[in-house]
Amino acid sequence: MKQTFAVIGLGRFGLSVCQSLIEEEQEVLAIDNDEELVTSYKDLVTQAVIADAQDEDAMRDLDLGNFDHVVIALGQNIQASVLATLIVKELGAKHIVAKAETTMHGRALEKIGADSIVFPERDMGQRVAHRLISHNILNYLALSDTYTLAEIRVANDKFNGKTLAELNFHDQFGLMLVAIARNNDVQVSPPATAIIQEGDTLSVIGKTVDVDRLDEATSDRI
Amino acid sequence: MKQTFAVIGLGRFGLSVCQSLIEEEQEVLAIDNDEELVTSYKDLVTQAVIADAQDEDAMRDLDLGNFDHVVIALGQNIQASVLATLIVKELGAKHIVAKAETTMHGRALEKIGADSIVFPERDMGQRVAHRLISHNILNYLALSDTYTLAEIRVANDKFNGKTLAELNFHDQFGLMLVAIARNNDVQVSPPATAIIQEGDTLSVIGKTVDVDRLDEATSDRI
Ligand SMILES: Nc1ncnc2c1ncn2[C@@H]1O[C@H](COP(=O)(O)OP(=O)(O)OP(=O)(O)O)[C@@H](O)[C@H]1O
Ligand SMILES: Nc1ncnc2c1ncn2[C@@H]1O[C@H](COP(=O)(O)OP(=O)(O)OP(=O)(O)O)[C@@H](O)[C@H]1O
Ligand SMILES: [Ca+2]
Ligand SMILES: [Ca+2]
Ligand SMILES: [Ca+2]
Ligand SMILES: [Ca+2]
Repeated sequence: MKQTFAVIGLGRFGLSVCQSLIEEEQEVLAIDNDEELVTSYKDLVTQAVIADAQDEDAMRDLDLGNFDHVVIALGQNIQASVLATLIVKELGAKHIVAKAETTMHGRALEKIGADSIVFPERDMGQRVAHRLISHNILNYLALSDTYTLAEIRVANDKFNGKTLAELNFHDQFGLMLVAIARNNDVQVSPPATAIIQEGDTLSVIGKTVDVDRLDEATSDRI
Repeated sequence: MKQTFAVIGLGRFGLSVCQSLIEEEQEVLAIDNDEELVTSYKDLVTQAVIADAQDEDAMRDLDLGNFDHVVIALGQNIQASVLATLIVKELGAKHIVAKAETTMHGRALEKIGADSIVFPERDMGQRVAHRLISHNILNYLALSDTYTLAEIRVANDKFNGKTLAELNFHDQFGLMLVAIARNNDVQVSPPATAIIQEGDTLSVIGKTVDVDRLDEATSDRI
Protein backbone atom coordinates (compact mmCIF):
# COMPACT_ATOMS: atom_id res chain seq x y z
CA MET A 1 0.00 0.00 0.00
CA LYS A 2 1.54 3.28 -1.12
CA GLN A 3 2.01 5.97 1.54
CA THR A 4 3.07 9.60 1.34
CA PHE A 5 6.24 10.91 2.99
CA ALA A 6 7.74 14.38 3.41
CA VAL A 7 11.47 14.35 4.21
CA ILE A 8 12.92 17.64 5.48
CA GLY A 9 16.70 17.86 5.18
CA LEU A 10 18.74 16.08 2.54
CA GLY A 11 21.90 15.31 4.51
CA ARG A 12 23.27 11.79 4.33
CA PHE A 13 20.56 10.45 6.63
CA GLY A 14 17.62 12.22 4.97
CA LEU A 15 18.85 11.25 1.53
CA SER A 16 19.17 7.62 2.53
CA VAL A 17 15.59 7.69 3.86
CA CYS A 18 14.40 9.14 0.52
CA GLN A 19 16.30 6.57 -1.51
CA SER A 20 15.01 3.62 0.48
CA LEU A 21 11.41 4.88 0.32
CA ILE A 22 11.60 5.41 -3.44
CA GLU A 23 13.04 1.92 -3.89
CA GLU A 24 9.91 0.66 -2.13
CA GLU A 25 7.75 2.72 -4.48
CA GLN A 26 6.46 5.19 -1.94
CA GLU A 27 5.62 8.86 -2.66
CA VAL A 28 8.30 11.20 -1.39
CA LEU A 29 8.39 15.00 -1.15
CA ALA A 30 11.95 16.14 -0.35
CA ILE A 31 12.60 19.55 1.21
CA ASP A 32 15.89 21.38 1.76
CA ASN A 33 16.92 25.04 1.84
CA ASP A 34 20.05 24.26 -0.18
CA GLU A 35 19.14 24.95 -3.81
CA GLU A 36 22.03 22.93 -5.20
CA LEU A 37 21.06 19.82 -3.23
CA VAL A 38 17.41 20.07 -4.23
CA THR A 39 18.35 20.43 -7.89
CA SER A 40 20.68 17.45 -7.87
CA TYR A 41 18.17 15.11 -6.23
CA LYS A 42 14.94 16.27 -7.84
CA ASP A 43 14.83 13.27 -10.18
CA LEU A 44 15.39 10.80 -7.38
CA VAL A 45 12.19 11.67 -5.52
CA THR A 46 8.55 12.27 -6.45
CA GLN A 47 8.89 16.01 -5.84
CA ALA A 48 11.66 18.21 -4.45
CA VAL A 49 11.30 21.78 -3.23
CA ILE A 50 13.62 24.45 -1.89
CA ALA A 51 12.21 25.74 1.39
CA ASP A 52 13.28 26.81 4.86
CA ALA A 53 11.90 24.43 7.48
CA GLN A 54 11.80 27.31 9.97
CA ASP A 55 9.41 29.27 7.72
CA GLU A 56 5.88 28.50 8.88
CA ASP A 57 4.18 29.87 5.77
CA ALA A 58 6.38 27.87 3.44
CA MET A 59 5.65 24.69 5.43
CA ARG A 60 1.90 25.39 5.41
CA ASP A 61 1.97 25.79 1.61
CA LEU A 62 3.45 22.31 1.34
CA ASP A 63 0.40 20.87 3.08
CA LEU A 64 2.45 18.77 5.50
CA GLY A 65 -0.65 17.94 7.55
CA ASN A 66 -1.81 15.68 4.75
CA PHE A 67 1.21 13.38 4.58
CA ASP A 68 1.19 9.98 6.27
CA HIS A 69 4.68 10.62 7.66
CA VAL A 70 6.95 13.63 8.03
CA VAL A 71 10.64 12.88 8.60
CA ILE A 72 12.67 15.76 10.06
CA ALA A 73 16.26 15.01 9.11
CA LEU A 74 17.94 18.28 10.04
CA GLY A 75 21.26 17.77 11.78
CA GLN A 76 23.88 20.11 13.15
CA ASN A 77 21.48 23.04 13.68
CA ILE A 78 19.45 21.91 16.70
CA GLN A 79 17.41 25.12 16.81
CA ALA A 80 16.17 24.56 13.25
CA SER A 81 15.18 20.98 14.01
CA VAL A 82 13.26 21.98 17.13
CA LEU A 83 11.45 24.83 15.37
CA ALA A 84 10.64 22.68 12.32
CA THR A 85 9.16 19.97 14.54
CA LEU A 86 7.02 22.56 16.32
CA ILE A 87 5.72 23.98 13.04
CA VAL A 88 5.02 20.61 11.45
CA LYS A 89 3.20 19.46 14.60
CA GLU A 90 1.01 22.57 14.62
CA LEU A 91 0.20 22.01 10.96
CA GLY A 92 -1.36 18.72 12.07
CA ALA A 93 1.18 16.23 10.76
CA LYS A 94 -0.07 12.70 11.48
CA HIS A 95 3.23 11.01 12.25
CA ILE A 96 6.53 12.78 12.85
CA VAL A 97 9.93 11.08 12.96
CA ALA A 98 12.79 13.37 13.97
CA LYS A 99 16.56 12.89 13.95
CA ALA A 100 18.37 13.94 17.12
CA GLU A 101 21.99 14.64 17.88
CA THR A 102 22.01 14.15 21.63
CA THR A 103 19.77 12.72 24.34
CA MET A 104 18.71 16.21 25.44
CA HIS A 105 17.87 17.14 21.85
CA GLY A 106 15.81 13.99 21.52
CA ARG A 107 13.91 14.70 24.71
CA ALA A 108 13.05 18.21 23.50
CA LEU A 109 11.78 16.87 20.18
CA GLU A 110 9.62 14.33 21.97
CA LYS A 111 8.11 17.00 24.24
CA ILE A 112 7.27 19.13 21.21
CA GLY A 113 5.39 16.26 19.67
CA ALA A 114 7.67 14.08 17.54
CA ASP A 115 6.23 10.55 17.57
CA SER A 116 9.55 8.82 17.17
CA ILE A 117 13.17 9.94 17.59
CA VAL A 118 16.18 8.52 15.75
CA PHE A 119 19.83 8.85 16.79
CA PRO A 120 21.71 7.56 13.73
CA GLU A 121 25.27 8.18 14.92
CA ARG A 122 24.68 7.07 18.50
CA ASP A 123 22.86 3.89 17.49
CA MET A 124 25.38 2.87 14.86
CA GLY A 125 28.19 3.60 17.31
CA GLN A 126 26.62 1.16 19.76
CA ARG A 127 26.16 -1.47 17.05
CA VAL A 128 29.73 -1.18 15.84
CA ALA A 129 31.15 -1.34 19.37
CA HIS A 130 29.08 -4.41 20.12
CA ARG A 131 30.23 -6.09 16.92
CA LEU A 132 33.89 -5.36 17.68
CA ILE A 133 33.72 -6.77 21.20
CA SER A 134 31.88 -9.91 20.27
CA HIS A 135 33.80 -12.48 18.31
CA ASN A 136 31.42 -13.52 15.57
CA ILE A 137 28.02 -12.01 16.29
CA LEU A 138 27.11 -10.50 12.95
CA ASN A 139 23.78 -9.09 14.05
CA TYR A 140 21.44 -9.29 16.98
CA LEU A 141 18.02 -8.24 18.25
CA ALA A 142 17.55 -7.75 21.98
CA LEU A 143 14.13 -9.32 22.64
CA SER A 144 14.04 -8.40 26.33
CA ASP A 145 16.53 -7.59 29.08
CA THR A 146 17.71 -11.19 29.07
CA TYR A 147 16.80 -12.73 25.69
CA THR A 148 18.59 -12.21 22.41
CA LEU A 149 18.18 -13.35 18.84
CA ALA A 150 21.58 -13.44 17.16
CA GLU A 151 23.31 -14.35 13.93
CA ILE A 152 26.66 -15.97 14.74
CA ARG A 153 29.36 -16.91 12.27
CA VAL A 154 31.18 -20.17 12.91
CA ALA A 155 34.87 -19.23 12.67
CA ASN A 156 36.55 -22.51 13.62
CA ASP A 157 36.32 -26.13 12.52
CA LYS A 158 35.49 -27.59 15.95
CA PHE A 159 31.96 -28.50 14.86
CA ASN A 160 32.86 -29.50 11.31
CA GLY A 161 30.83 -32.36 9.97
CA LYS A 162 29.08 -33.06 13.28
CA THR A 163 25.29 -33.38 13.33
CA LEU A 164 23.23 -31.34 15.78
CA ALA A 165 22.37 -34.61 17.54
CA GLU A 166 26.06 -35.51 17.92
CA LEU A 167 26.85 -32.01 19.18
CA ASN A 168 23.88 -32.18 21.54
CA PHE A 169 23.50 -28.56 20.48
CA HIS A 170 20.40 -27.60 22.41
CA ASP A 171 21.52 -29.01 25.75
CA GLN A 172 25.12 -27.90 25.38
CA PHE A 173 24.32 -24.26 24.72
CA GLY A 174 20.80 -23.82 26.08
CA LEU A 175 19.91 -22.14 22.80
CA MET A 176 17.35 -22.82 20.14
CA LEU A 177 18.97 -23.07 16.71
CA VAL A 178 16.51 -21.36 14.40
CA ALA A 179 18.37 -21.53 11.10
CA ILE A 180 21.68 -22.39 9.46
CA ALA A 181 22.75 -20.16 6.58
CA ARG A 182 25.44 -21.38 4.19
CA ASN A 183 26.34 -19.02 1.36
CA ASN A 184 22.93 -17.78 0.27
CA ASP A 185 21.02 -20.92 1.36
CA VAL A 186 19.01 -20.85 4.55
CA GLN A 187 17.82 -24.01 6.32
CA VAL A 188 15.05 -22.99 8.67
CA SER A 189 14.47 -25.17 11.75
CA PRO A 190 17.27 -27.63 10.92
CA PRO A 191 16.65 -31.30 11.85
CA ALA A 192 18.85 -33.22 14.32
CA THR A 193 20.72 -34.68 11.34
CA ALA A 194 21.83 -31.26 10.04
CA ILE A 195 25.56 -30.57 10.19
CA ILE A 196 27.45 -27.42 11.07
CA GLN A 197 30.53 -26.29 9.15
CA GLU A 198 33.08 -23.55 9.52
CA GLY A 199 31.75 -20.45 7.74
CA ASP A 200 28.08 -21.21 8.49
CA THR A 201 25.94 -18.51 10.05
CA LEU A 202 23.76 -19.75 12.90
CA SER A 203 20.58 -17.93 13.90
CA VAL A 204 19.96 -18.69 17.55
CA ILE A 205 17.59 -17.49 20.22
CA GLY A 206 18.01 -17.72 23.97
CA LYS A 207 19.47 -16.07 27.04
CA THR A 208 22.02 -13.41 26.21
CA VAL A 209 24.66 -15.10 28.42
CA ASP A 210 24.21 -18.34 26.47
CA VAL A 211 24.49 -16.48 23.17
CA ASP A 212 27.79 -15.05 24.39
CA ARG A 213 28.99 -18.53 25.29
CA LEU A 214 28.25 -19.80 21.79
CA ASP A 215 29.98 -16.72 20.41
CA GLU A 216 33.15 -17.73 22.25
CA ALA A 217 32.84 -21.38 21.26
CA THR A 218 32.61 -20.47 17.56
CA SER A 219 35.51 -18.03 17.73
CA ASP A 220 38.83 -18.36 15.91
CA ARG A 221 40.66 -16.81 18.86
CA ILE A 222 42.42 -18.94 21.46
CA MET B 1 38.36 -10.88 27.39
CA LYS B 2 39.55 -7.27 27.44
CA GLN B 3 40.71 -5.81 24.12
CA THR B 4 42.38 -2.53 23.23
CA PHE B 5 40.76 0.06 20.98
CA ALA B 6 41.93 3.36 19.51
CA VAL B 7 39.08 5.63 18.36
CA ILE B 8 40.11 8.55 16.13
CA GLY B 9 37.50 11.33 15.97
CA LEU B 10 35.08 12.15 18.77
CA GLY B 11 32.03 13.21 16.74
CA ARG B 12 28.68 11.74 17.72
CA PHE B 13 29.54 8.39 16.14
CA GLY B 14 33.06 8.09 17.57
CA LEU B 15 31.87 9.14 20.98
CA SER B 16 29.10 6.58 20.97
CA VAL B 17 31.62 3.88 20.04
CA CYS B 18 33.83 4.97 22.98
CA GLN B 19 30.93 4.99 25.41
CA SER B 20 29.70 1.55 24.42
CA LEU B 21 33.19 0.06 24.60
CA ILE B 22 33.81 1.55 28.05
CA GLU B 23 30.46 0.20 29.25
CA GLU B 24 31.73 -3.24 28.24
CA GLU B 25 34.95 -2.62 30.16
CA GLN B 26 37.28 -2.45 27.20
CA GLU B 27 40.42 -0.29 27.01
CA VAL B 28 39.90 2.80 24.89
CA LEU B 29 42.34 5.42 23.64
CA ALA B 30 40.40 8.39 22.21
CA ILE B 31 42.06 10.78 19.75
CA ASP B 32 40.81 14.11 18.40
CA ASN B 33 42.51 17.31 17.25
CA ASP B 34 39.90 19.40 19.07
CA GLU B 35 41.41 20.24 22.45
CA GLU B 36 38.08 21.15 24.03
CA LEU B 37 36.50 17.82 23.06
CA VAL B 38 39.44 15.80 24.33
CA THR B 39 39.38 17.66 27.64
CA SER B 40 35.68 17.16 28.19
CA TYR B 41 35.77 13.42 27.48
CA LYS B 42 39.10 12.49 29.05
CA ASP B 43 37.43 10.94 32.11
CA LEU B 44 35.05 8.88 30.00
CA VAL B 45 37.80 6.83 28.32
CA THR B 46 40.96 5.05 29.44
CA GLN B 47 43.15 7.71 27.82
CA ALA B 48 42.45 10.72 25.62
CA VAL B 49 44.97 12.63 23.54
CA ILE B 50 44.93 15.67 21.32
CA ALA B 51 46.48 14.75 17.98
CA ASP B 52 46.03 15.31 14.26
CA ALA B 53 45.17 12.03 12.51
CA GLN B 54 46.93 13.33 9.38
CA ASP B 55 50.22 13.67 11.27
CA GLU B 56 52.19 10.46 10.71
CA ASP B 57 54.69 11.10 13.53
CA ALA B 58 51.96 11.78 16.05
CA MET B 59 50.18 8.57 15.06
CA ARG B 60 53.39 6.57 15.28
CA ASP B 61 54.02 7.89 18.80
CA LEU B 62 50.61 6.54 19.82
CA ASP B 63 51.70 3.03 18.86
CA LEU B 64 48.55 2.33 16.88
CA GLY B 65 50.04 -0.88 15.46
CA ASN B 66 49.69 -2.49 18.88
CA PHE B 67 45.92 -2.01 19.33
CA ASP B 68 43.50 -4.82 18.62
CA HIS B 69 41.20 -2.42 16.74
CA VAL B 70 41.52 1.10 15.35
CA VAL B 71 38.24 2.90 14.63
CA ILE B 72 38.53 5.86 12.26
CA ALA B 73 35.49 8.01 12.99
CA LEU B 74 36.35 11.15 11.04
CA GLY B 75 33.40 12.56 9.17
CA GLN B 76 32.90 15.59 6.98
CA ASN B 77 36.56 15.87 5.95
CA ILE B 78 36.98 12.94 3.57
CA GLN B 79 40.61 13.76 2.84
CA ALA B 80 41.51 13.48 6.52
CA SER B 81 39.77 10.14 6.84
CA VAL B 82 41.52 8.71 3.78
CA LEU B 83 44.93 9.94 4.90
CA ALA B 84 44.43 8.71 8.47
CA THR B 85 43.45 5.26 7.20
CA LEU B 86 46.58 5.15 5.03
CA ILE B 87 48.84 6.14 7.94
CA VAL B 88 47.25 3.74 10.41
CA LYS B 89 47.49 0.89 7.90
CA GLU B 90 51.19 1.59 7.29
CA LEU B 91 51.80 1.61 11.04
CA GLY B 92 50.64 -2.01 11.01
CA ALA B 93 47.23 -1.69 12.65
CA LYS B 94 45.71 -5.17 13.01
CA HIS B 95 42.07 -4.33 12.39
CA ILE B 96 40.76 -1.03 11.00
CA VAL B 97 37.12 0.03 11.00
CA ALA B 98 36.42 3.27 9.12
CA LYS B 99 33.35 5.46 8.88
CA ALA B 100 32.40 6.56 5.37
CA GLU B 101 30.13 9.28 4.07
CA THR B 102 29.39 7.96 0.61
CA THR B 103 29.79 4.74 -1.37
CA MET B 104 32.79 6.17 -3.23
CA HIS B 105 34.41 7.20 0.03
CA GLY B 106 33.83 3.72 1.41
CA ARG B 107 35.38 2.11 -1.64
CA ALA B 108 38.49 4.28 -1.31
CA LEU B 109 38.87 3.37 2.37
CA GLU B 110 38.58 -0.31 1.53
CA LYS B 111 41.24 -0.09 -1.20
CA ILE B 112 43.59 1.65 1.23
CA GLY B 113 43.19 -1.22 3.67
CA ALA B 114 40.30 -0.61 6.05
CA ASP B 115 38.98 -4.03 7.10
CA SER B 116 35.43 -2.91 7.60
CA ILE B 117 33.47 0.18 6.53
CA VAL B 118 30.50 1.70 8.35
CA PHE B 119 27.93 4.10 6.90
CA PRO B 120 26.01 5.28 9.98
CA GLU B 121 23.69 7.78 8.30
CA ARG B 122 22.99 5.66 5.23
CA ASP B 123 22.31 2.49 7.23
CA MET B 124 20.06 4.18 9.75
CA GLY B 125 18.21 5.92 6.92
CA GLN B 126 17.49 2.52 5.38
CA ARG B 127 16.34 1.10 8.71
CA VAL B 128 14.04 4.03 9.42
CA ALA B 129 12.52 3.94 5.93
CA HIS B 130 11.91 0.22 6.23
CA ARG B 131 10.27 0.65 9.62
CA LEU B 132 7.98 3.39 8.31
CA ILE B 133 6.80 1.38 5.33
CA SER B 134 6.15 -1.79 7.22
CA HIS B 135 3.21 -1.84 9.57
CA ASN B 136 4.56 -3.46 12.68
CA ILE B 137 7.99 -4.83 11.94
CA LEU B 138 10.02 -3.55 14.86
CA ASN B 139 13.28 -5.04 13.76
CA TYR B 140 14.61 -7.50 11.21
CA LEU B 141 17.71 -9.34 10.07
CA ALA B 142 18.03 -10.25 6.41
CA LEU B 143 19.45 -13.80 6.51
CA SER B 144 19.74 -14.14 2.74
CA ASP B 145 18.18 -12.63 -0.36
CA THR B 146 14.90 -14.35 0.43
CA TYR B 147 14.89 -15.19 4.17
CA THR B 148 14.23 -12.80 7.02
CA LEU B 149 14.15 -12.98 10.78
CA ALA B 150 11.71 -10.36 12.07
CA GLU B 151 10.16 -9.02 15.25
CA ILE B 152 6.52 -8.14 14.54
CA ARG B 153 4.17 -6.36 16.92
CA VAL B 154 0.56 -7.61 16.94
CA ALA B 155 -1.50 -4.43 16.59
CA ASN B 156 -5.01 -5.85 16.31
CA ASP B 157 -7.15 -8.29 18.32
CA LYS B 158 -7.85 -10.72 15.47
CA PHE B 159 -5.74 -13.44 17.08
CA ASN B 160 -6.72 -12.65 20.66
CA GLY B 161 -6.95 -15.68 22.89
CA LYS B 162 -6.49 -18.18 20.03
CA THR B 163 -3.91 -20.94 20.44
CA LEU B 164 -1.28 -21.47 17.78
CA ALA B 165 -2.99 -24.79 16.99
CA GLU B 166 -6.36 -23.07 16.49
CA LEU B 167 -4.73 -20.40 14.31
CA ASN B 168 -2.88 -23.08 12.39
CA PHE B 169 -0.09 -20.52 12.52
CA HIS B 170 2.65 -22.39 10.72
CA ASP B 171 0.56 -23.48 7.75
CA GLN B 172 -1.35 -20.22 7.48
CA PHE B 173 1.74 -18.02 7.27
CA GLY B 174 4.49 -20.42 6.20
CA LEU B 175 6.60 -18.99 9.01
CA MET B 176 8.31 -20.50 12.00
CA LEU B 177 7.29 -18.73 15.20
CA VAL B 178 10.49 -18.60 17.23
CA ALA B 179 9.32 -16.64 20.27
CA ILE B 180 6.45 -14.63 21.75
CA ALA B 181 7.44 -11.62 23.86
CA ARG B 182 4.88 -10.08 26.20
CA ASN B 183 6.07 -7.10 28.23
CA ASN B 184 9.52 -8.23 29.29
CA ASP B 185 8.75 -11.98 29.24
CA VAL B 186 9.95 -14.09 26.35
CA GLN B 187 8.55 -17.52 25.55
CA VAL B 188 11.04 -19.27 23.29
CA SER B 189 9.71 -21.93 20.93
CA PRO B 190 6.08 -21.60 22.09
CA PRO B 191 4.03 -24.83 22.19
CA ALA B 192 0.86 -25.35 20.08
CA THR B 193 -1.17 -24.38 23.15
CA ALA B 194 0.40 -20.90 23.41
CA ILE B 195 -1.92 -17.98 22.73
CA ILE B 196 -1.31 -14.71 20.89
CA GLN B 197 -2.64 -11.39 22.17
CA GLU B 198 -2.73 -7.85 20.87
CA GLY B 199 0.48 -6.12 21.94
CA ASP B 200 2.61 -9.28 21.77
CA THR B 201 5.83 -9.22 19.79
CA LEU B 202 6.34 -12.26 17.57
CA SER B 203 9.81 -13.35 16.45
CA VAL B 204 9.40 -15.19 13.19
CA ILE B 205 11.67 -16.62 10.54
CA GLY B 206 10.84 -17.45 6.97
CA LYS B 207 10.56 -16.10 3.44
CA THR B 208 10.52 -12.31 3.33
CA VAL B 209 7.24 -12.31 1.36
CA ASP B 210 5.60 -14.39 4.10
CA VAL B 211 6.96 -12.07 6.79
CA ASP B 212 5.36 -9.16 4.91
CA ARG B 213 2.05 -11.05 4.80
CA LEU B 214 2.10 -11.55 8.57
CA ASP B 215 3.01 -7.88 8.96
CA GLU B 216 -0.19 -6.96 7.13
CA ALA B 217 -2.30 -9.46 9.04
CA THR B 218 -1.16 -8.04 12.39
CA SER B 219 -1.69 -4.42 11.32
CA ASP B 220 -4.17 -1.99 12.85
CA ARG B 221 -4.81 -0.43 9.43
CA ILE B 222 -7.73 -1.44 7.28
N1 LIG C 1 16.29 25.50 8.04
C1 LIG C 1 16.47 24.54 7.14
N2 LIG C 1 15.50 24.28 6.23
C2 LIG C 1 15.65 23.31 5.31
N3 LIG C 1 16.75 22.54 5.23
C3 LIG C 1 17.75 22.75 6.10
C4 LIG C 1 17.66 23.74 7.10
N4 LIG C 1 18.80 23.71 7.84
C5 LIG C 1 19.57 22.73 7.31
N5 LIG C 1 18.95 22.14 6.27
C6 LIG C 1 19.45 21.02 5.46
O1 LIG C 1 19.43 19.85 6.24
C7 LIG C 1 20.41 18.93 5.75
C8 LIG C 1 21.05 18.21 6.92
O2 LIG C 1 21.70 19.15 7.77
P1 LIG C 1 23.22 19.00 8.24
O3 LIG C 1 24.09 18.74 7.07
O4 LIG C 1 23.54 20.09 9.15
O5 LIG C 1 23.10 17.72 9.14
P2 LIG C 1 24.07 16.50 9.32
O6 LIG C 1 23.93 16.00 10.71
O7 LIG C 1 25.45 16.76 8.82
O8 LIG C 1 23.36 15.49 8.41
P3 LIG C 1 23.85 14.05 8.04
O9 LIG C 1 24.66 13.59 9.22
O10 LIG C 1 22.60 13.28 7.85
O11 LIG C 1 24.65 14.20 6.82
C9 LIG C 1 21.36 19.76 4.89
O12 LIG C 1 21.25 19.32 3.55
C10 LIG C 1 20.88 21.19 5.04
O13 LIG C 1 20.97 21.92 3.82
N1 LIG D 1 42.60 15.60 11.24
C1 LIG D 1 41.92 15.28 12.35
N2 LIG D 1 42.56 14.70 13.40
C2 LIG D 1 41.89 14.37 14.51
N3 LIG D 1 40.58 14.58 14.69
C3 LIG D 1 39.89 15.17 13.69
C4 LIG D 1 40.51 15.54 12.48
N4 LIG D 1 39.58 16.10 11.67
C5 LIG D 1 38.41 16.06 12.34
N5 LIG D 1 38.60 15.52 13.56
C6 LIG D 1 37.57 15.28 14.59
O1 LIG D 1 36.72 14.26 14.16
C7 LIG D 1 35.44 14.40 14.76
C8 LIG D 1 34.36 14.03 13.76
O2 LIG D 1 34.42 14.88 12.63
P1 LIG D 1 33.16 15.67 12.03
O3 LIG D 1 32.48 16.38 13.14
O4 LIG D 1 33.58 16.38 10.84
O5 LIG D 1 32.31 14.45 11.56
P2 LIG D 1 30.77 14.20 11.60
O6 LIG D 1 30.39 13.38 10.43
O7 LIG D 1 29.98 15.43 11.85
O8 LIG D 1 30.68 13.28 12.84
P3 LIG D 1 29.36 12.71 13.48
O9 LIG D 1 28.35 12.60 12.39
O10 LIG D 1 29.80 11.41 14.03
O11 LIG D 1 29.01 13.69 14.53
C9 LIG D 1 35.38 15.82 15.28
O12 LIG D 1 35.31 15.82 16.69
C10 LIG D 1 36.66 16.47 14.79
O13 LIG D 1 37.22 17.35 15.75
CA1 LIG E 1 25.94 17.41 6.65
CA1 LIG F 1 30.23 16.78 13.79
CA1 LIG G 1 27.63 13.87 10.91
CA1 LIG H 1 25.61 12.85 10.79
